Amino acid sequence: MKRVHNFSAGPATLPTEVLETAKEEILDYKGLGASVMEISHRSPEYTQIDAEAKESLKRLLGLNDDFHIMFLQGGASGQFMQIPFNFLSEGQTADYISTGRWSVKAIKEAKLFGNVHVPFSSEDDNFTHVPGNKLDYTEDAAYVHFTSNNTVVGTQFPSEPETNGIPLVCDASSDILSRPVDVDKYGMIYAGAQKNLGPAGVTIVIIRKDFLAGANKKNIPTLLDYNTHTQKIFNTPPSYPVYMVNLVLKWIEGKGGLPFFQELNTKKANLIYSTIDEDDFYRGTAQVDSRSKMNITFRLPSEELEQTFLEDAKKHDLVALKGHRSVGGIRASIYNACELESVETLVSFMNDFRSKKG
Amino acid sequence: MKRVHNFSAGPATLPTEVLETAKEEILDYKGLGASVMEISHRSPEYTQIDAEAKESLKRLLGLNDDFHIMFLQGGASGQFMQIPFNFLSEGQTADYISTGRWSVKAIKEAKLFGNVHVPFSSEDDNFTHVPGNKLDYTEDAAYVHFTSNNTVVGTQFPSEPETNGIPLVCDASSDILSRPVDVDKYGMIYAGAQKNLGPAGVTIVIIRKDFLAGANKKNIPTLLDYNTHTQKIFNTPPSYPVYMVNLVLKWIEGKGGLPFFQELNTKKANLIYSTIDEDDFYRGTAQVDSRSKMNITFRLPSEELEQTFLEDAKKHDLVALKGHRSVGGIRASIYNACELESVETLVSFMNDFRSKKG
Repeated sequence: MKRVHNFSAGPATLPTEVLETAKEEILDYKGLGASVMEISHRSPEYTQIDAEAKESLKRLLGLNDDFHIMFLQGGASGQFMQIPFNFLSEGQTADYISTGRWSVKAIKEAKLFGNVHVPFSSEDDNFTHVPGNKLDYTEDAAYVHFTSNNTVVGTQFPSEPETNGIPLVCDASSDILSRPVDVDKYGMIYAGAQKNLGPAGVTIVIIRKDFLAGANKKNIPTLLDYNTHTQKIFNTPPSYPVYMVNLVLKWIEGKGGLPFFQELNTKKANLIYSTIDEDDFYRGTAQVDSRSKMNITFRLPSEELEQTFLEDAKKHDLVALKGHRSVGGIRASIYNACELESVETLVSFMNDFRSKKG
Repeated sequence: MKRVHNFSAGPATLPTEVLETAKEEILDYKGLGASVMEISHRSPEYTQIDAEAKESLKRLLGLNDDFHIMFLQGGASGQFMQIPFNFLSEGQTADYISTGRWSVKAIKEAKLFGNVHVPFSSEDDNFTHVPGNKLDYTEDAAYVHFTSNNTVVGTQFPSEPETNGIPLVCDASSDILSRPVDVDKYGMIYAGAQKNLGPAGVTIVIIRKDFLAGANKKNIPTLLDYNTHTQKIFNTPPSYPVYMVNLVLKWIEGKGGLPFFQELNTKKANLIYSTIDEDDFYRGTAQVDSRSKMNITFRLPSEELEQTFLEDAKKHDLVALKGHRSVGGIRASIYNACELESVETLVSFMNDFRSKKG
């Protein structure tokens, strides 16, 4: 069996141990004589998987009983419309900080439902930075939406924006559980699973109960109303992706939780950034104080060299390093499951490549 | 490794061969050194999986290029609102045939968008039958919606309702690919994968191009607009469930396609129904001419005996036979992947149980 150094931006690499457990259990889950894919979502076994995953999330994020946790479908793109469906009425205003392609998509959907105020956008700078902490928010904004990590350009908020009490709604798809967060500041945190949490197909939605209680929209389609999902599993969930997420969550806890990964991810990111910063052969594309610890984006002196870099990297089993099609260049996505060894191999390759071509 | 005779109504049993292939490939898909769960949905390998699955569906159902095929999320429950979101405007009427719990749920969502006319409902008879073929449809109905197989009560339309040209929209979640259908009659066919097609988490949506072209709704959230999904993969799909569906589709084709399964499913269903009909110990709950070949529902002389039946069955590795919580009794779900041997084992157990307790 071959395993490469996989820097995919998402769906992204998973811990090998987790895939090995999945392999072992795929035809016969805990002696049931059936796969997790083949059992009812109302069965005791699946009910336990669902409950265990939620308990892990609570422990890891330090959530108390003030929060609902839901495993939904549709990814962050689904939340872009479901959030204003529930939380933004005609005449109301929500504030959206615009730091990249995904923020822009979220804004587009919100405008179908109410007013959107954008207190900050780095679009004119190609989204190469996130804002400082003093922004001009709408006084009675329903919420402030932000994208904590921007996968495409490789920027990340160093910490939560300060909103003076307006609840934050965060698309944390690409950095959830990569570091501790201050949950008290959030009305809602959501994330597609396919970067830091598991395979594609399940969306983690965490909503503060009092924030949800304040949403009073009428005539929401049943499936889109968050209240539908607070008490029990409403419809068939993506049970195998949830099972995988549960395995990943246990793996995160086993390693030492968010403090462990904060330290590891910082170490991994610094290894690559310091290699980039050594001279001007590699050029980081995000502004230094906005650099992401999840997606590291850089350019080489020419597109031709970038192409050679990608081809040579592949020969060393360093794969999925191509930048997003909208920006080009190189992108190394180093989520929790990307091992230090993979980063060290990449850095060593980067140094070799520079000494040969630089 | 143990494998039971699994009669789960969904998520339902999968072909053992398919799970074995999945097991083999789970850490290293075709020499990539990564799992299908770990690769980009824009990669050549996933693009091929998506294309292969769509080609298989076209071959199996006899679809020509007049149809779009999409792999979406949210299950049939998602389609209940997405269909009227796209196809039913204020002032317009859609006809919904009401043959069970899922039809009722579909009707509830449609009413948020336009007028709903119900030309037939068997609710007063506990949904124990489907209609005959002469119904009073709205002349300019946007579409006629029906549930081809009713999982909870165990009824099934013997063939498509005759609507004199009004396009059919069909929730085929529990009998898709179990028999040939007359695709020319449909504007749309949709199905959650977790019964006949694969694991939960992906919804197969097939829409006739001219039916979609007639939908002219404004301001639909991007993800809910079917047009968003016709040309390319819009957002991260549930890639592993789609991969599993592709394996199941290949397995269906390998066995001989829909004619093979129509014959096999008829044989399996007849084996159980003839056992039920032998005397009055077992009592089928669906009316005879409406009986489903997918979900076979029956009662025993007392609830106590039903409980004993379930417990004894489990000792023979016959599992997930409990009827839906809303109706009780026994339900044997025998979708494509339920083997003849499992049905024979069940029938033999039913005969033994009757001779001991009858």
